[in-house]
Amino acid sequence: MRENGAVRTLGEVTLEELLAEGTDLTGWAAKQKGGRIESEIGMKYLPPLRHPPKILCVGLNFKDHSKESNFEQPDYPTMFLRVNTSLVAHNAPIVRPRVSDSLDFEGEIAVVLGRGGRHISKDDALSHVAGYALFNDASVREYQFKTPQWTIGKNFDDTGAFGPDLVTADELPLGAQGLRLETRLNGELVQSANTNDMVFDVPTLISLLSEAMTLEPGDVIVAGTPSGIGWARSPKLLMRHGDVCEVSVQGIGTLRNTIVDEGEIG
Amino acid sequence: MRENGAVRTLGEVTLEELLAEGTDLTGWAAKQKGGRIESEIGMKYLPPLRHPPKILCVGLNFKDHSKESNFEQPDYPTMFLRVNTSLVAHNAPIVRPRVSDSLDFEGEIAVVLGRGGRHISKDDALSHVAGYALFNDASVREYQFKTPQWTIGKNFDDTGAFGPDLVTADELPLGAQGLRLETRLNGELVQSANTNDMVFDVPTLISLLSEAMTLEPGDVIVAGTPSGIGWARSPKLLMRHGDVCEVSVQGIGTLRNTIVDEGEIG
Repeated sequence: MRENGAVRTLGEVTLEELLAEGTDLTGWAAKQKGGRIESEIGMKYLPPLRHPPKILCVGLNFKDHSKESNFEQPDYPTMFLRVNTSLVAHNAPIVRPRVSDSLDFEGEIAVVLGRGGRHISKDDALSHVAGYALFNDASVREYQFKTPQWTIGKNFDDTGAFGPDLVTADELPLGAQGLRLETRLNGELVQSANTNDMVFDVPTLISLLSEAMTLEPGDVIVAGTPSGIGWARSPKLLMRHGDVCEVSVQGIGTLRNTIVDEGEIG
Repeated sequence: MRENGAVRTLGEVTLEELLAEGTDLTGWAAKQKGGRIESEIGMKYLPPLRHPPKILCVGLNFKDHSKESNFEQPDYPTMFLRVNTSLVAHNAPIVRPRVSDSLDFEGEIAVVLGRGGRHISKDDALSHVAGYALFNDASVREYQFKTPQWTIGKNFDDTGAFGPDLVTADELPLGAQGLRLETRLNGELVQSANTNDMVFDVPTLISLLSEAMTLEPGDVIVAGTPSGIGWARSPKLLMRHGDVCEVSVQGIGTLRNTIVDEGEIG
């Protein structure tokens, strides 16, 4: 991709811009010269997209998680939204807010759209996907359940960990199916599931969402967490200052975040 | 406000930009020359902001509406979010989607923030408000109640009517208190309430939201609807192709939209 005769590098352009322009990311990445990162020392990650047009999160998308959460399994995707101010990068701290100690993990995959549209058929849906990343949909449970709507518990600052990389769709199985999704807290395996067990797979999610709304390039669909969350355990397992939480999917990588109490940063 | 030596007019700058720059809107408006609109003929409205950073909607914020909706009154604001693709301007059609005929009205006031922040005190909250507008939080009820989360029913394209104008806070009572809010469907009064009856007033909403998240200039808080919605009536009163819905608040104006079936537009 050329602009003013020069190949732009990621430092000069955002993924939001590349996707809005309809850039083929695989071709674009191949053209980047000297872009290979030899060491992460001194490097600071940002979320792959900091200002996606929408962050569409799917709740209750694994049957065993719906059960542990005491919800009936709905036959339509249970959607909530995140705002951009809730995003936090790989290696950056997930912040436990001062108003509650009920911070919980939720390992998920995030689907990033390259092409938007309305009334997208299931058959065509995967052609709208640019790639996949990891997401830790960290949730402040007390606030999630203060009212019938989960919004506030899902939108505290620095709780939606997103990254480390956007892996283009061509590097993964179709629809990111058949992948092992694992969450570890301080090295201990706390969630483990196969993406095949999602109630609504990626094409179904894209198609159903587009019945209601125009999807846009750069939109992120956070596809839901499996069972094993800390809030459903007895005793509850909550994240505390100094904990390290990791979300891993084969082929996508590992998203790692330390938990830090609000006010204890920097 | 001057940029490159010339006073910018609204055609050249968005309200989002003005607010992000910390512009005093009252002063800015006074400096606009020839900006007085003598006739609306041939003029097309846009929403006051088309890309607000967040659209934070408050559910269950009038006790009689919580009751008609069969919800217990929560002692914390019940929040859901809208995405920008759901917004529609004054005089533009609210679209009844092809997948459902359960389109309902919800007249509300929208609070637009001029200044952001985190952990904003109630005492300081109103200094963060740039102004107020009207909102018709039109809801596709079947989709709102398909799952425990209302998100999809609140986010169909062209259902969140917003406008006509942003009225700066100095032109209204403090916190937009003591105002009569009315919704009319085809001229018939269907909702009527006083903003004093909001369970959580504007300063409380700003303060509580900012406990969880960083608020940004241009954020919109849609403050909740009173009783009278069509879905709670017997028989149900739903909006149909050709209906005209108006939301009025004294001092803010009237937001008027015709209902049009999806696919029937121009």
